[in-house]
Amino acid sequence: MTVANGAGQEPGGKGKQSVRVGVVGLGRLGRRHAQNLAYRVPGARLVAACSPLDEERTWARDTLPDLRLYDDYAALLADTTVDAVWLVTPSALHAQQIVDALHAGKHVFCEKPLSLDVAECERVLAEAARYPHLQATIGFMRRFDPSYRDAFNKVRDGAIGRPFLVRSQTCDWNDPDGFFVRFAPTSGGIFLDCTVHDIDVARWLLGKPRAKRVFASGTVALHEGLREFGDVDNGVAICEFEDGRLAVFYASRTMAHGNDSGSEVIGTAGALSIGRNPRLNRVEILDAHGVRNECTPTFFERFEDAFLAEAQAFVAAVRGGAQTGASLADALEATRIGSALRASLASGEAVTL
Amino acid sequence: MTVANGAGQEPGGKGKQSVRVGVVGLGRLGRRHAQNLAYRVPGARLVAACSPLDEERTWARDTLPDLRLYDDYAALLADTTVDAVWLVTPSALHAQQIVDALHAGKHVFCEKPLSLDVAECERVLAEAARYPHLQATIGFMRRFDPSYRDAFNKVRDGAIGRPFLVRSQTCDWNDPDGFFVRFAPTSGGIFLDCTVHDIDVARWLLGKPRAKRVFASGTVALHEGLREFGDVDNGVAICEFEDGRLAVFYASRTMAHGNDSGSEVIGTAGALSIGRNPRLNRVEILDAHGVRNECTPTFFERFEDAFLAEAQAFVAAVRGGAQTGASLADALEATRIGSALRASLASGEAVTL
Amino acid sequence: MTVANGAGQEPGGKGKQSVRVGVVGLGRLGRRHAQNLAYRVPGARLVAACSPLDEERTWARDTLPDLRLYDDYAALLADTTVDAVWLVTPSALHAQQIVDALHAGKHVFCEKPLSLDVAECERVLAEAARYPHLQATIGFMRRFDPSYRDAFNKVRDGAIGRPFLVRSQTCDWNDPDGFFVRFAPTSGGIFLDCTVHDIDVARWLLGKPRAKRVFASGTVALHEGLREFGDVDNGVAICEFEDGRLAVFYASRTMAHGNDSGSEVIGTAGALSIGRNPRLNRVEILDAHGVRNECTPTFFERFEDAFLAEAQAFVAAVRGGAQTGASLADALEATRIGSALRASLASGEAVTL
Amino acid sequence: MTVANGAGQEPGGKGKQSVRVGVVGLGRLGRRHAQNLAYRVPGARLVAACSPLDEERTWARDTLPDLRLYDDYAALLADTTVDAVWLVTPSALHAQQIVDALHAGKHVFCEKPLSLDVAECERVLAEAARYPHLQATIGFMRRFDPSYRDAFNKVRDGAIGRPFLVRSQTCDWNDPDGFFVRFAPTSGGIFLDCTVHDIDVARWLLGKPRAKRVFASGTVALHEGLREFGDVDNGVAICEFEDGRLAVFYASRTMAHGNDSGSEVIGTAGALSIGRNPRLNRVEILDAHGVRNECTPTFFERFEDAFLAEAQAFVAAVRGGAQTGASLADALEATRIGSALRASLASGEAVTL
Repeated sequence: MTVANGAGQEPGGKGKQSVRVGVVGLGRLGRRHAQNLAYRVPGARLVAACSPLDEERTWARDTLPDLRLYDDYAALLADTTVDAVWLVTPSALHAQQIVDALHAGKHVFCEKPLSLDVAECERVLAEAARYPHLQATIGFMRRFDPSYRDAFNKVRDGAIGRPFLVRSQTCDWNDPDGFFVRFAPTSGGIFLDCTVHDIDVARWLLGKPRAKRVFASGTVALHEGLREFGDVDNGVAICEFEDGRLAVFYASRTMAHGNDSGSEVIGTAGALSIGRNPRLNRVEILDAHGVRNECTPTFFERFEDAFLAEAQAFVAAVRGGAQTGASLADALEATRIGSALRASLASGEAVTL
Repeated sequence: MTVANGAGQEPGGKGKQSVRVGVVGLGRLGRRHAQNLAYRVPGARLVAACSPLDEERTWARDTLPDLRLYDDYAALLADTTVDAVWLVTPSALHAQQIVDALHAGKHVFCEKPLSLDVAECERVLAEAARYPHLQATIGFMRRFDPSYRDAFNKVRDGAIGRPFLVRSQTCDWNDPDGFFVRFAPTSGGIFLDCTVHDIDVARWLLGKPRAKRVFASGTVALHEGLREFGDVDNGVAICEFEDGRLAVFYASRTMAHGNDSGSEVIGTAGALSIGRNPRLNRVEILDAHGVRNECTPTFFERFEDAFLAEAQAFVAAVRGGAQTGASLADALEATRIGSALRASLASGEAVTL
Repeated sequence: MTVANGAGQEPGGKGKQSVRVGVVGLGRLGRRHAQNLAYRVPGARLVAACSPLDEERTWARDTLPDLRLYDDYAALLADTTVDAVWLVTPSALHAQQIVDALHAGKHVFCEKPLSLDVAECERVLAEAARYPHLQATIGFMRRFDPSYRDAFNKVRDGAIGRPFLVRSQTCDWNDPDGFFVRFAPTSGGIFLDCTVHDIDVARWLLGKPRAKRVFASGTVALHEGLREFGDVDNGVAICEFEDGRLAVFYASRTMAHGNDSGSEVIGTAGALSIGRNPRLNRVEILDAHGVRNECTPTFFERFEDAFLAEAQAFVAAVRGGAQTGASLADALEATRIGSALRASLASGEAVTL
Repeated sequence: MTVANGAGQEPGGKGKQSVRVGVVGLGRLGRRHAQNLAYRVPGARLVAACSPLDEERTWARDTLPDLRLYDDYAALLADTTVDAVWLVTPSALHAQQIVDALHAGKHVFCEKPLSLDVAECERVLAEAARYPHLQATIGFMRRFDPSYRDAFNKVRDGAIGRPFLVRSQTCDWNDPDGFFVRFAPTSGGIFLDCTVHDIDVARWLLGKPRAKRVFASGTVALHEGLREFGDVDNGVAICEFEDGRLAVFYASRTMAHGNDSGSEVIGTAGALSIGRNPRLNRVEILDAHGVRNECTPTFFERFEDAFLAEAQAFVAAVRGGAQTGASLADALEATRIGSALRASLASGEAVTL
């Protein structure tokens, strides 16, 4: 599918200096970011990469354009040719790595979440306030998905009147191996790991209202191993914002059909639905199973374009454009609401923020 | 669209005696029921109608086959040629009218809700227990909609594994005149008036688990007049059932596109969505607005087939078939849960049942 | 799905005399018509039925309301209590049976086609011209399908500007037993058997322009037995009408997904698509096969509502309303064009009408 | 939407020499190609551009990375640093420019069509046969659209049994200014200008069968100015291939809803539909117009991904991979069939090839 408004993503912006980027972390998603930055983001130059794993650095050496390779984050920060760092590292490291990058004078893009801990988020914000000239963005990539972007623009332009309700979901294809069960001790639970995207979407589409109260519930449909961590594989929640705005969230690890992540925003004069059918592409199959389409298997395929657009936007922001992604303050709010959801799930009670 | 399994709705069941029906209440929905019973339900004969309004009786005289007309419910109950009464009267009258019908030895079909008051529901059940030979059914018509029926059968047959989550909504086209605002003092509020359908659907599709806890929220998007009654025009809710089953509800009075009432049932091996796009028919329009379909304007058009099928099923049950609609006990549960949702909306707290 | 405009189909038209109908032929489709006329058409009374087969008359005796049963068509025509005959007989008999019915002073509804032979069609029209007070209609039921009707009304009301192209198809679920191969010697071939519906739809939606030239082609995809009859199991055709109007047809016997019969009408200001996805109902299935819907298996389920509406319309016409179905002249044109398609398929050349 | 199988499009192929490309023609489509080659095709370097127009060269100077600019094609061909030329020039120039490029020892990518004249196509093939070491590809970009590619792979893998029928259309949003009317004298007419894409798709999906006979028709729905050139703004056609394979084509200049270009391939065990709804993106709008999606306005947005993928594939082929796009022989066949369609439209007769 097509970018509703592809304007402005091309021009190399001749005459301006390229942004020299160092990517940190070369797992599956890190590699995607590295390749985007290396080949598909005008105005960016991927000049360095950092990973503690030999195997990942070997991949970089074989696959990426010539760049400096580090096995130590501090060494990369000491590289004066690096203008911006791109953190695709374990969540527990994000907060400190962001602070270190800012201290080193680097712009910083960091995958979500900022931190699973509200106080730590606040500490990062306090530090970042000292570096107003540096970009610091958290990678809520849905804001850069062409369809989400189109919906946002339509809402902004009044197409559905006053928006008052967002329904949003992050639903993963069931992984029979239950990778996320092993990940459960550090993931923060389904609401901080998955719903955090929906929280950001809801705030973004509703005009960033302040959250007042939440209620969450959930169930273990398939993955019994989650119980010992107080986690669930299917969670639902309601979030009340000020001014009577509302959000309803759903997160699942057990979808049979693929990654089904979408949102709906309802206003006084209409509604917009984004990704209601998680179609893989434009092909429909007509056979003994009926009329059908295949689904996006993971968020990776679903948000391929969004990952690229967010990189382009970040680089444009560093080069002088307006910031367009989620700010650290947005990320703090997402963590604050997600933590309240987790508390509500644990207590069975509504939680007032 | 087509009945997935139209079997058994036709045959007149020759040799069996017709069920002689008296319809009570001839408003818009009462007329629809009367016409179905008069012309489209093999095995039924519409022999009487009752309304206190001259205008409604005149309509019946002019439109329906020859039948006896009453302006008084007691008189209709005294008519010994009536085997079954069909109540399409104001909600506040339902409970006593059902009891009276049973006392008079009549089978009874009654539009939802049984009552807005749990204690009154329980009183009707206690009375009805004394008349086990009489059919008494509450009109949750979605159970008879061909698509809901198809989904129910698929769930029953294991198509989606173990169902654990239902998402269901009852969303009305916005009525700028706000009829329901005037109706608010007696409607019981959005959850008892609208969501009661979704509650019944959720219980039915999930195997009738017991509800344990609910949380509800809502907002007034357009109709300020609702505030004085503590009601909202958009409500959302979560219902926890035993065994980790869950439901999420949405009700709205303010849709811009039509009546959008549908459900989704999610299981361990798949999901079924019913009525995701409230399409009016099979026509798609391709023009300057894009590619689109028109929507069902009201529940009346959406559930036209269901109203007929429920009448056919009730008559078949009276003639000796198994009961297939919602029982009084089902209606009691719907009122119990709906009342808890109302209490949660008022208090802002989760309510344990 | 719902009738876009259900107005006017109900009222029993009290005070008017019922139309007493005799149905002729009680195969699968005949039974459907008989049941509709017996139970679901206000203003009609099914008073007689005729079949040479004991088994079919036994079915009628067991299933239908009390009615007179005949094994001989002449005897039914002699029954003075019959106002109208309803022919669901083999195609080869239609023409003479229509003429006989008119001679006997009966209104006549006849399943398509009028005849496979143009000259015979013309002979029936000449006879019918002598009985202008009698209704004579050929059952092109798509005109009564709610979605086709909605599209027709929209075209009439100018919604798509001037319509100039119809694309229409009649595609059957593959029958591995190849019933239609055994039927091939008498079916007239795929264009006269299937496409005749599309021809009628095209003429109806385009304002009944005169056909000028056709070209047809086809292939045997699966059913080799058709070759000896010069028939194909997949046929395509173009029909040029006067004033630059066009139609493109497709007929298939070999669909893997169900009966897929739909149409598209394209105008200068928009287009309408009818039945683009042959969905069975409003259920979507989300599972390992993707997101899908089941399909209508046969025309029987697809056009269930249309068969009923055409019966209601015919009875209303007999009782004094305007004729709304396909006239004998429409049926003649459909046969004329269908015959030209067959000739083009045989010759490989365009055929001028 | 997502590439069904994105494998292999990323890696820069380290160690191999970059392909140095010169783009010729910098109109709207030429600029798109130039930007792709400059920024988004690993392994390519855009080193030169050629346009006779000052304005276009100025655009290149301001927007593209440093490159050599020529106002004369011969000068570009003389540039020994150019490995491959990329022709986005008027159709009438294609044939000679391809030959000249080959003579100069350059690989050549050329936008469709190869030529509107069959004899000229054949002359180019004869010349090209002398340069087997040089890539020469015509830009039938649909082969590189992710959805078309997915369908092709499914057909190849037997998902629909034996494919025997393709229905394919190229339908443009109506341009009230009628640009294509002014273009009519040189466009070759609707079949050579638009349907040529569908011809290539049909041949590609059906296994490149030889065409035997065609029939075409058409109408002027809106643009009367086309009549003097014997052209139409809506054309339909049937193409018979050997072995009973068939194609049905539709081309339009007058769509009200957007660019609606898609295809369907029907086999003995199923069918695949590509782009049935020309949705712009994943957003659905629910409002007073019903439920709808916006459409791709032009082929430019619809095939944005395809233009990029074909550039990546061409560069990969030059660097030693297998050729994957349309060959000169494919382009010759498309012109041969398109010319026969034009002849059939003019004569009203079927044309045997």
